[in-house]
Amino acid sequence: MNIKGKIINDPVYGFIRFPEEELLKVIDHPLFQRLRNIKQMGMAQLVYPGAVHTRFAHSLGACHLMGKALDELKAKGLDVSRDEYLAARIAILLHDIGHAPFSHALEHTLIDGVSHETISQLFMQRMNKEFGGLLDEAIAVFNNTHPKLYLHQLVSSQLDVDRMDYLNRDSFYTGVSEGVIGYDRILQMLTVQDGSLMVEEKGVHSVEKFIIARRLMYWQVYLHKTVLSAEILLINILKRARELALSGLQLFATPALHYFLYNSFDEKSFKNNEELLSHYSSLDDNDITVSIKIWQEHEDEILSTLCKMMVNRRLYKVSLTSDSVTNLYAEKKELIKKQLNIKDADLSYFVSSGVASNDTYNISDERIQIAMKGGNAVDISEIDNPIVNKALAIPIHKNYICYMRL
Amino acid sequence: MNIKGKIINDPVYGFIRFPEEELLKVIDHPLFQRLRNIKQMGMAQLVYPGAVHTRFAHSLGACHLMGKALDELKAKGLDVSRDEYLAARIAILLHDIGHAPFSHALEHTLIDGVSHETISQLFMQRMNKEFGGLLDEAIAVFNNTHPKLYLHQLVSSQLDVDRMDYLNRDSFYTGVSEGVIGYDRILQMLTVQDGSLMVEEKGVHSVEKFIIARRLMYWQVYLHKTVLSAEILLINILKRARELALSGLQLFATPALHYFLYNSFDEKSFKNNEELLSHYSSLDDNDITVSIKIWQEHEDEILSTLCKMMVNRRLYKVSLTSDSVTNLYAEKKELIKKQLNIKDADLSYFVSSGVASNDTYNISDERIQIAMKGGNAVDISEIDNPIVNKALAIPIHKNYICYMRL
Amino acid sequence: MNIKGKIINDPVYGFIRFPEEELLKVIDHPLFQRLRNIKQMGMAQLVYPGAVHTRFAHSLGACHLMGKALDELKAKGLDVSRDEYLAARIAILLHDIGHAPFSHALEHTLIDGVSHETISQLFMQRMNKEFGGLLDEAIAVFNNTHPKLYLHQLVSSQLDVDRMDYLNRDSFYTGVSEGVIGYDRILQMLTVQDGSLMVEEKGVHSVEKFIIARRLMYWQVYLHKTVLSAEILLINILKRARELALSGLQLFATPALHYFLYNSFDEKSFKNNEELLSHYSSLDDNDITVSIKIWQEHEDEILSTLCKMMVNRRLYKVSLTSDSVTNLYAEKKELIKKQLNIKDADLSYFVSSGVASNDTYNISDERIQIAMKGGNAVDISEIDNPIVNKALAIPIHKNYICYMRL
Amino acid sequence: MNIKGKIINDPVYGFIRFPEEELLKVIDHPLFQRLRNIKQMGMAQLVYPGAVHTRFAHSLGACHLMGKALDELKAKGLDVSRDEYLAARIAILLHDIGHAPFSHALEHTLIDGVSHETISQLFMQRMNKEFGGLLDEAIAVFNNTHPKLYLHQLVSSQLDVDRMDYLNRDSFYTGVSEGVIGYDRILQMLTVQDGSLMVEEKGVHSVEKFIIARRLMYWQVYLHKTVLSAEILLINILKRARELALSGLQLFATPALHYFLYNSFDEKSFKNNEELLSHYSSLDDNDITVSIKIWQEHEDEILSTLCKMMVNRRLYKVSLTSDSVTNLYAEKKELIKKQLNIKDADLSYFVSSGVASNDTYNISDERIQIAMKGGNAVDISEIDNPIVNKALAIPIHKNYICYMRL
Repeated sequence: MNIKGKIINDPVYGFIRFPEEELLKVIDHPLFQRLRNIKQMGMAQLVYPGAVHTRFAHSLGACHLMGKALDELKAKGLDVSRDEYLAARIAILLHDIGHAPFSHALEHTLIDGVSHETISQLFMQRMNKEFGGLLDEAIAVFNNTHPKLYLHQLVSSQLDVDRMDYLNRDSFYTGVSEGVIGYDRILQMLTVQDGSLMVEEKGVHSVEKFIIARRLMYWQVYLHKTVLSAEILLINILKRARELALSGLQLFATPALHYFLYNSFDEKSFKNNEELLSHYSSLDDNDITVSIKIWQEHEDEILSTLCKMMVNRRLYKVSLTSDSVTNLYAEKKELIKKQLNIKDADLSYFVSSGVASNDTYNISDERIQIAMKGGNAVDISEIDNPIVNKALAIPIHKNYICYMRL
Repeated sequence: MNIKGKIINDPVYGFIRFPEEELLKVIDHPLFQRLRNIKQMGMAQLVYPGAVHTRFAHSLGACHLMGKALDELKAKGLDVSRDEYLAARIAILLHDIGHAPFSHALEHTLIDGVSHETISQLFMQRMNKEFGGLLDEAIAVFNNTHPKLYLHQLVSSQLDVDRMDYLNRDSFYTGVSEGVIGYDRILQMLTVQDGSLMVEEKGVHSVEKFIIARRLMYWQVYLHKTVLSAEILLINILKRARELALSGLQLFATPALHYFLYNSFDEKSFKNNEELLSHYSSLDDNDITVSIKIWQEHEDEILSTLCKMMVNRRLYKVSLTSDSVTNLYAEKKELIKKQLNIKDADLSYFVSSGVASNDTYNISDERIQIAMKGGNAVDISEIDNPIVNKALAIPIHKNYICYMRL
Repeated sequence: MNIKGKIINDPVYGFIRFPEEELLKVIDHPLFQRLRNIKQMGMAQLVYPGAVHTRFAHSLGACHLMGKALDELKAKGLDVSRDEYLAARIAILLHDIGHAPFSHALEHTLIDGVSHETISQLFMQRMNKEFGGLLDEAIAVFNNTHPKLYLHQLVSSQLDVDRMDYLNRDSFYTGVSEGVIGYDRILQMLTVQDGSLMVEEKGVHSVEKFIIARRLMYWQVYLHKTVLSAEILLINILKRARELALSGLQLFATPALHYFLYNSFDEKSFKNNEELLSHYSSLDDNDITVSIKIWQEHEDEILSTLCKMMVNRRLYKVSLTSDSVTNLYAEKKELIKKQLNIKDADLSYFVSSGVASNDTYNISDERIQIAMKGGNAVDISEIDNPIVNKALAIPIHKNYICYMRL
Repeated sequence: MNIKGKIINDPVYGFIRFPEEELLKVIDHPLFQRLRNIKQMGMAQLVYPGAVHTRFAHSLGACHLMGKALDELKAKGLDVSRDEYLAARIAILLHDIGHAPFSHALEHTLIDGVSHETISQLFMQRMNKEFGGLLDEAIAVFNNTHPKLYLHQLVSSQLDVDRMDYLNRDSFYTGVSEGVIGYDRILQMLTVQDGSLMVEEKGVHSVEKFIIARRLMYWQVYLHKTVLSAEILLINILKRARELALSGLQLFATPALHYFLYNSFDEKSFKNNEELLSHYSSLDDNDITVSIKIWQEHEDEILSTLCKMMVNRRLYKVSLTSDSVTNLYAEKKELIKKQLNIKDADLSYFVSSGVASNDTYNISDERIQIAMKGGNAVDISEIDNPIVNKALAIPIHKNYICYMRL
C-alpha cells in the first residue's frame, strides 16, 4: 500500500502533494528548477530580512491552490476532466517560468522591452517540444484559448491563485500580517456560472478582505520606500554596467551575464535566437548579486559607488507623496551636482523621480463576479454597500523622488 | 530569585503577566470572578461552536493590551506614573463588570432600560468602598474625568484596547480569520500628541485594516443571520417567562432569576437597592440556560415551544436585506396565525421584524486621529486616499424579518 | 451548482465539512446537542481561563480527523466503502456521548460505579432505535465487533483520532504549546497492514513526538496541582450534598440533579430504567455549577464552606510528590481537626490524599505498530534507539495530599 | 515623541526591536551584513524549498531572544547592567559571524582544519579595533572569560538562545512542526543560581520538550538522507575543483573563490594574513552556487558530472542504517567502477561511506541544571522520571553509504 507522487513540506500550507507523474516531470525540468535561485521579492529582503523565499516555492504553492480550487469546484458538481485538471495545474506551475532575476530591474535594463510573459511562452514551448506535446492543453489555458474560460481565470485574473499564493506567502515571509487572507474560505466560495469563475454571495466578505489585503501589501511592502529605493539603485547599477560594457570596458561577469551586458536584444531576438534563450535560462539572482559585490572594486567611480551603496545598504533617500516633487527634484539635483562634481549626463545615477501606482481593484481588468442567491451575477464593486466602492476603484499614483544621501 | 504576581496562559497572547498586587485583588473579587460564567459572545456558539470564551478571559486580555500600550508610550518617552498605569489597567479590567448574562437580550427584557455601563459603575463603587478607595483613579479614567484624556481613550474610543482584544479573541475562537488584526503593530504605532491618543502616520495601514476587520466581523459574525435569530428567540423566551410570572404563574427559576422574573425595576432602583444589586451579581449564563432547558416542559405552550426551539436549535428563519420587508412580514404573519391558531397578541413570539445596523467608522464618535510626520493631526478618514472614505463612514442599516419554521 | 451538507468553522482546523446527511441527523439529535453544555476539560478552566471548550466541539473535531484519516488510507489504495466510512465517522462522533458533566467527579459520586462508556452504549442504542438501525455498523465499530479492525483502532487505541483531537484542542485552548502535535503528518503516515492500523516507518518521529506531547500534557495540564485540587473539591461538594439529601435535608436542585441526589443507582439500573436514562440525558454542567453557586447559602456549614471555596477559587493546597505523604497527611489532619472543630467523620472533606498516575505508553494496551520498509511490523518501543524506551514505558504514580488553606 | 533604534519585522517573532545604538553599528557592519548571503541551512532547501532563510535573520533572532532572556532575569531581580546586557546581545549577534558559506562543506575542503569559531574570533577582533574597544566585554562573554558565567551560558550551552532560535526558525521555514519549541515558556522559567544559568523546576517539561524537539529535528531535517546526500556532493565538487586548480587547470571563479581554490591555508595563516581574512570575508553562498552552475560546462568530466548532478538535483542515493555498510559499499564500488570506467583514485567521487551522529543530550557538555523548589540544583537527566534518561543520553551513530544513481 503506497501512494504515488511527491509530498513537499511547505511552511505556508503544510504538506502539499503532487501525485501526478506529469507534474513531477515538469518540476524536475532545469527551466523550472532555475526558479530556486530567483527570489520572489527581489530586493525587499533588505527591508524584510525574512523575505528570501523563491519563485520556485511560490509556483509550487500556487499549483497547490489550483488543485484545491478545482477540487472544490468538482465537489460542487462541476465536471473537470483529469486532463483539464492537469493542464490548469501545469499552467499555473509555469506561469512565472520566464521571470528574469530581479525581474522588474532587468526588464528596465538588460532585456529592455522584453516582458517575462513572452519568455514564459517561449520556455513553455521549448519544454513542450521536449515532452512531445504534453503541455499543449496547459499552454491553451495559459493563453486563454482553452474553451473552459474559468481555467484561465484561475491562472490569471483579479482573483487568481497566483495572487492568493503570493499575498499569503509574502505576508508569511515578511511577517506583515496585513496581507494574510482567508484563502481557504475564498476557495470554498468559488463557483462557476455561465462558464465563468465567480464567488458565491456568502463569500463576499472574504473577497473584500482579499482586495483590501492586497492594497495594504502594496503600500506597506511592495511600494515600501526603501524597497523602491533598492530597486532604483539596482536599475542604475545595471544601466551603468551596460554603459561601460558597450563602451568597451572590462567588467567581471559570469558568462550568462556577460552575454547580456555586451549585446543588445529585443523581443524578436528572443524568438529567433536559441542561444540567447539558453543564456537567459542560465541567468539567476546569484549572477547579479555576485557581480555587484565584485564591481565595488571597479575603476569606474560611478559604478563602484553605486555598488558599495547596495552592498553596504546605504540606499537612496526616498520621498513618496501625492504632491508634486518638481521643486524638490531640481533642488536635490543642484545640490548633488555641486557636491559630487560629476557630468550632467551622469546625475541621473544619483537623483531621480518617477511615479508609483497601485490599483486596489481594476474595473477595466478581468473583474470579480459575485454569484447572487437570486441567480444573477454582480460585480464586486456593485453589491450593496461595497467596500470596493468607486473611491477605492480609482488607481492611486504617487510621485517619488530619490537621491543619494550626502 | 522569584518574580511576584501571576502568570496566566492565554491562548490568544501566550503568557500574560499580572505583577501588580492591586490587580490581583481586583481579579480575585467575586464580582470579577462572576465573569467566568458569562460568555463573551452569548448565543453565537450556536453558529460557531468554538466561540464559548468568557468575558473573564476578554477582560484579562484587554488588561494585558493596556499594559502593552502603556509600555510602548513609556518607551517613547511619555511620562506615565505607576498610579496612572495601574488605574488604566484596572479601568479596562472592570469595563465589562456590569454585563448581564446574554446582555443584549436581558437589557431588552428583565432589566429593561438599565444599561450595563450603569451597573459597571455601581459595581466599581461597591468594590472601591471595600478596597478603601483603591479604585478612585481607575473610576476617574473610566468616567473620563481623569486629566490625562488618552487613558480614557485607551479604555473607550474607536481605537481602544477593548475592541482590539475582542476582535482578536472573537476571531480566534470563532475561527473567522477576517477579524484578525495586527494588534502588535497598532500598539507600536500609538503615540500621544496634545494629550490625545493618536496613531503615527506610518501606522495608517494597520488602523485601516483594523477598521475593515471590524466591519467584516459585524457582517460575518455579530450580525450573522443565525446569531440574530437565536438572540431574538432568547428575548422572546424571557419576555414570555416574565409575562407568565407577572400574571402569577409558577416557573422554575434559580433564586436570582426568580427575583428578576417576578419584580420590575428601573435604573433608579439599582442605585437605591443594595439587595437588587446583590441578586444581579449572582446572575449568570447558567441561570438562564438551565431554566430554558427546564421550561421545555412548562404547561404554557408558547413558552415550552420557544424553549424547545432553542434547545433543539430549530431557530427562526431570518432574512436580512436592504429592501423593505413589510410585505413579507404581513404574509408570514398571516400564515403563522392560520397554522398555529394563536391570539394576535401572541403572534410576535413567532414572527417579527426590525433593523440591524453597523457603522464601519463613526465620525460623530471618539475619532481616530493620525499624527502626521509634518506635526499636524488628521482624521483617519481625511488622509490621502483613505480606505475609510465617505462611502464607508455611512452607517449601514439592514431590515430583517424572522419567523418560525413551519 | 451547490454543495450539500454543512460547513462548520472550527478554530483548530479551520473549515470542517459534514457532507453526509446521516451525520447531520446524528449531530442534530438532542443527545448529541447536549454535549454543547459539557466542557471538555471540566474544572481546568480555573487554571486555564481559555479552556472552556466543549465535548461538542471535540467530537466534531475528532469526526473531522476520522474523515481525513480515511481519505488518506483511501488515497493509498485501501478499499473503504461509503458505509464503512460513515460508520467510523459516526462511531467517533458519538464516542463521548455518555459523558456526565464533570465526568470524573460524577463517576465518583452521583453515578458511582457507572462508566460513561456504558452510557454511551445505551444512548447509541436509543438513537439507533429512533433512526431505524442507521447506527448498526457504527455501533459495531465502536464495540470492536466490526470485521475491519483498523476502524475500531482509529476510534480507540493509543493512536486514535480521539487523542489526536483532544491533545491538539486542549493545547489550543489552554495555550500550552507542549501538547501541539503534527497531526497532519501522523495522518499522512497511517497505513493498514494485515488488517491493522500502523504507521509508516518514516512517520516514526511524528509518533514519538505525539507520545511525548501526551506525557507532557498530563503533567502540565491534566494532572496540574490546581486542576487536581478543584476536582477533589467538586467530588467533596457532591458527596456532601448527597449525604445531606439522603438524610432528608432540602437542597436547591434542578429536576435532573434532584433525581440523582435523592436516589441511588448502579449500572444495572441504567439498563432497565428508561426514566433514569432520560434524567441523565438532561443533566449538564449548568445544573452542577448553578447549584454550587446557590449552595453557598445552605445552612449546612460544611456544604456552604466547600461551595464558597469553589466559587471564590480558594481551593485546597496540593502537594504532588514521588515520596510518601503519610506523615504530612497525619500532621495536616491533626491541624485541621483542631482549627475547624469538626467531627472525625467529616475531616475527609478538608484533607485527603491519593495517587495520580500517568502512562506515557502502555505496552499492555492497544499498541502502536510501525510498518517497516522491509515489510515487517515493529512496536514503536522496539525500533532502533526509540524515545519510548523501557524507562518511559513504565507508568508513573505520584502521591498527593490536599488540604484546606487555613 | 519618538522611539530610538530600529524595529525589524521577523516572521518568527513578529516585531523585534534594537533600541541600542551600539547594536545598530554592529548590524550595519559589512562583516555582519555578509550573513545576508549565507543560508542558515545550506543545501537543505533542496529538500525543504521554504528553508532559504539566512544566518543574518538567525543572528537577529537569537539576539532578540537574548534580550528577552535577560529581561526575564532582570524582572526576577537579577542585577544586569546596561553594559552586560549589551555585551551579551552583541556576543550572540556575532556568534556565527565567522561562518563560511555552506560551512560544513567548506570546512572539509577549501579551509580544511579551520573552524568557524576561530574566524568568528578574528572577525570580532577586527571589528573591535575599528570600533575602538566597543566589543571588549562582548568578546569576554563569547570566550567565557566574563565573570558572569550565565551570560556565556546563554550564548553557548545546551540551553542557549542560539539553539532556541535555530530550532524555532528552522521549524518555521521547513514547515516541520516537530521542531517547534515553547521558547517563551523556557525563557520565563530561566533563573540564575550560584552564578549559573538554570531552569525553575516547574519549567522541566518545557525543557524536556526542547531536548526532544532537537533530537527529532536532527533525524527529520539535519540528518535527512537527501540533505546528507547534497552535502556530500558539494564536498566532492569542491574537492575536485581544488584538485584541478592545484594541478594548474583553469576554472571559472569569482576573485574570492579563486583565492581559496588556488592556495592552501591553515588556522595559523588566518591569524597572520589580513589579506586572507579579507578574501574570506567576501566569500558567500553566491560565489559557490554560481561557480557550480558554470562548472557544468567544464572540460573535466568528473567535475562537470558532479555539478550537473547538483544543479539538476540528481543526487546520490543514500542509505542510513544502524547496521554495517561494508558489504554494500564494496558492492556499489565495484558496480560503479565497471559502469563509469574511471580510475580507482576517483571512485570516491561517486561512492562513499561514513557515520552520522546525533546526541540528544550530552552529559559531558555544558549541562542543563534544574533549580529545584527545595533549593538544590539537579541535572535534567536526574530528576524524577526524566524523559532524558540514560537511554536517551547515549549518542546515536548511524552508518551511511551514498552512491551515484546509475
